[in-house]
Amino acid sequence: QCDLTGWWENELGSKMRVDAVDSQGNFTGEYHTAVSSAQKPIEPSPLLGSQHLDEDGQCTFGFTVNWKFSDSTAVFAGQCFAGDGGKEVLQSTWLLREKVDSLPSDWKATR
Amino acid sequence: QCDLTGWWENELGSKMRVDAVDSQGNFTGEYHTAVSSAQKPIEPSPLLGSQHLDEDGQCTFGFTVNWKFSDSTAVFAGQCFAGDGGKEVLQSTWLLREKVDSLPSDWKATR
Amino acid sequence: QCDLTGWWENELGSKMRVDAVDSQGNFTGEYHTAVSSAQKPIEPSPLLGSQHLDEDGQCTFGFTVNWKFSDSTAVFAGQCFAGDGGKEVLQSTWLLREKVDSLPSDWKATR
Amino acid sequence: QCDLTGWWENELGSKMRVDAVDSQGNFTGEYHTAVSSAQKPIEPSPLLGSQHLDEDGQCTFGFTVNWKFSDSTAVFAGQCFAGDGGKEVLQSTWLLREKVDSLPSDWKATR
Repeated sequence: QCDLTGWWENELGSKMRVDAVDSQGNFTGEYHTAVSSAQKPIEPSPLLGSQHLDEDGQCTFGFTVNWKFSDSTAVFAGQCFAGDGGKEVLQSTWLLREKVDSLPSDWKATR
Repeated sequence: QCDLTGWWENELGSKMRVDAVDSQGNFTGEYHTAVSSAQKPIEPSPLLGSQHLDEDGQCTFGFTVNWKFSDSTAVFAGQCFAGDGGKEVLQSTWLLREKVDSLPSDWKATR
Repeated sequence: QCDLTGWWENELGSKMRVDAVDSQGNFTGEYHTAVSSAQKPIEPSPLLGSQHLDEDGQCTFGFTVNWKFSDSTAVFAGQCFAGDGGKEVLQSTWLLREKVDSLPSDWKATR
Repeated sequence: QCDLTGWWENELGSKMRVDAVDSQGNFTGEYHTAVSSAQKPIEPSPLLGSQHLDEDGQCTFGFTVNWKFSDSTAVFAGQCFAGDGGKEVLQSTWLLREKVDSLPSDWKATR
């Protein structure tokens, strides 16, 4: 079964630590991004999410990152795949919501 | 300041309840979707997320919905806007991750 | 049947003109955006796209806008719906690709 | 300068042929997808798009694919990068619009 607990790294060099997953599938952790569109220096930021606890161990999951160095929030949605030899791979996509001044700028707030 | 706590409804008729937001900005709640791409009957599903606690009350936020009736997970990212007369409006976008059998099907897993 | 030819306006106040659709479903036109993330003044920009020619007149379509005032490109994908009284409504989503300096910045290039 | 004309292949095994790019940056071509969410057999499908003609040869581009075997339309937006030794790499993202029956199903029409 796919266990999200531990350290993961993506192809951009960003790393995340997922703490213990509870019986509901909820988890906390910390995201260490390698890239940023903000002016301030990057800091590790807390993440909070949830995974499905499927029997086949190919669970989908999602989490939110509340950036400490920027008025923006990222969300990730993905799935865990068990590869050959038991190696687990996460595939995910994300949205980055940046703060905008007012509703008319809402159209450009999300990458 | 924008307080996410309470009930919200979107233009599709989906409703969500956000419980008390803690001092970190974290919150839990329940999402009652009006639409579904799954076969099984819709059930209210738990949500878990986080918001920025900005002084100007135009906070960005994100949350994860762990669907109870489907092997899929949704994430939402958005911002709260204070409108005329103090009425608050949430603008958000979402990703819906559906479970797929294997890595070669990953390309089509996210709406 | 849904005919894209003519003028359309979206909720942001952007307008577009679609010229005659040819027998393959291809069309040209001009997009007059009301919003921009670029520094230079907005100019009408050429669009080029294609629609399905389905019998039921609920065609899907896509088009590219080559912005004249910015080194970026937008694409739209949508569907035409015939409403009550024959009024046609277009629903679409878009991606805005902004030019970035190098591959490591690719992650943030698309809204 | 980045010239889109020729054959390109992505990491899923899909291939496309871009014909001559005209003086406006417009081009036609054919997309041979390796993956599909449709029932019918895959067929090569026409594409139509446009690129910026920037002096630095790092142009952004977009194109529409009008699928021959499915009532859906895809759009791609991306950028050309010149790598070491003059090798060109395309980075792009896409939207796949599938036909839905009516407006209330619009929310799920786009991947």
